Amino acid sequence: MRIDVVSIFPEYLAALELSLIGKARQDGVLDVRVHDLRTFTTDRHRTVDDTPYGGGAGMVMKPEPWAQALDAVLADAPSPDRPTLVVPSPAGAVFDQAMAHDMASLDHLVFACGRYEGIDERAIEWARDGFDVRPVSLGDYVLNGGEVAVLAMVEAVGRLIPGVVGNPESLVEESHSDGLLEYPVYTKPSSWRGRDVPEVLLSGNHAKIAQWRRVEQFRRTADRRPDLLADVDATALTKADLAALRGAGFDVVDGRLTRPAH
Amino acid sequence: MRIDVVSIFPEYLAALELSLIGKARQDGVLDVRVHDLRTFTTDRHRTVDDTPYGGGAGMVMKPEPWAQALDAVLADAPSPDRPTLVVPSPAGAVFDQAMAHDMASLDHLVFACGRYEGIDERAIEWARDGFDVRPVSLGDYVLNGGEVAVLAMVEAVGRLIPGVVGNPESLVEESHSDGLLEYPVYTKPSSWRGRDVPEVLLSGNHAKIAQWRRVEQFRRTADRRPDLLADVDATALTKADLAALRGAGFDVVDGRLTRPAH
Repeated sequence: MRIDVVSIFPEYLAALELSLIGKARQDGVLDVRVHDLRTFTTDRHRTVDDTPYGGGAGMVMKPEPWAQALDAVLADAPSPDRPTLVVPSPAGAVFDQAMAHDMASLDHLVFACGRYEGIDERAIEWARDGFDVRPVSLGDYVLNGGEVAVLAMVEAVGRLIPGVVGNPESLVEESHSDGLLEYPVYTKPSSWRGRDVPEVLLSGNHAKIAQWRRVEQFRRTADRRPDLLADVDATALTKADLAALRGAGFDVVDGRLTRPAH
Repeated sequence: MRIDVVSIFPEYLAALELSLIGKARQDGVLDVRVHDLRTFTTDRHRTVDDTPYGGGAGMVMKPEPWAQALDAVLADAPSPDRPTLVVPSPAGAVFDQAMAHDMASLDHLVFACGRYEGIDERAIEWARDGFDVRPVSLGDYVLNGGEVAVLAMVEAVGRLIPGVVGNPESLVEESHSDGLLEYPVYTKPSSWRGRDVPEVLLSGNHAKIAQWRRVEQFRRTADRRPDLLADVDATALTKADLAALRGAGFDVVDGRLTRPAH
């Protein structure tokens, strides 16, 4: 997969040289290219921003350097297909695991890191001629610019590409892959500072372990993300799941899993 | 504000030396200290992980190095108050702007960056003795570790601390501060590659500009985040807002703002 990132802080993207993503680049699985927006300016001061029309605080990124930078990315695209241009912005659709899977299936992703009050809207409209443009938000919070959002999205997307994560099983068992949060994990020693690993995990009884983990997933989800629990269709649960959940204090009301106050 | 980060990839946190956060550190507004978890191991191989009890893919972070590292952070805490320990995890409560404001009011934030399948749950339970522990998720997607989540959270929290963002007005006008997405922005030139800045923004009529921006906020929110629009209490809107919104194709049904298919 080819990834281009345009930013005025290319050094912020250095983290993409580390860890699994860095290794995937060395292995040739990911081809990540970071471009400095300022190299696409033509004035002596390499200006990328100016005051907003209509007034207001802050500065707005000028459209022309973006058009120049994105034209250069298009000219060097690995295929004639329209690349996807992700514009990280708190005013975008919210990034989630389904979007990460969707992006992981693409051949060419381009990220435009806005700073200040954002990029002149005309540059985004203009980009629709050559790109599939998607304003995407990392979450309902405000960052100083798109760079950290790109680090997160490239990590979330990159790890789904075959060959990036050593053991693909790890991808199946994790939070959100089944709509529930991950169960708690434990490792050696079995007794540590007066705290013991739950006995069932030492039992060697795989069915019991699976059932315990499943109940812990529901418990955690109920505690921390009741919004996700509300999406669970209780009528689709197995009899064994239902029995275990009732034992753990859950109940089924109108086909939805609930847990009385505890 | 004091921030401690514990990680096996301290170099990943180098981005915290850049831009506004880097400047806030130089100015003494933020005191950020990054600790390498491996310095708190005692074996020759500096082991931080082992296989999970109960089986399954991947490795789990051992509890003892975490206890050692967090004890060292406590011993060097700037005040006797309990610090808040944020554990980035897809199995946490979801980070949002309200949580960022809440964290920005604290004196001492500690981040524990898990990797692999996560940290032995007993280390988290143990930490509750000395810390206010909060498992927090950056969003509904899976990352390779907590580091990028820390970069995002420190940026979102840091910029809310007085003195970090030059113009505090910028904080007021942005996405999510009023439950709506930000309006589109424009800068010079007024005509660019055949695309003109919306005329109202050149009018100098502040009331009209404010009204146009407000309608654009509602329009964008309806397009990209209908979930946020559903939270708007239409009975609390001003008459002028309502008139402008009706002109833009919105309607009010049962006190909620709606927009028929367009």
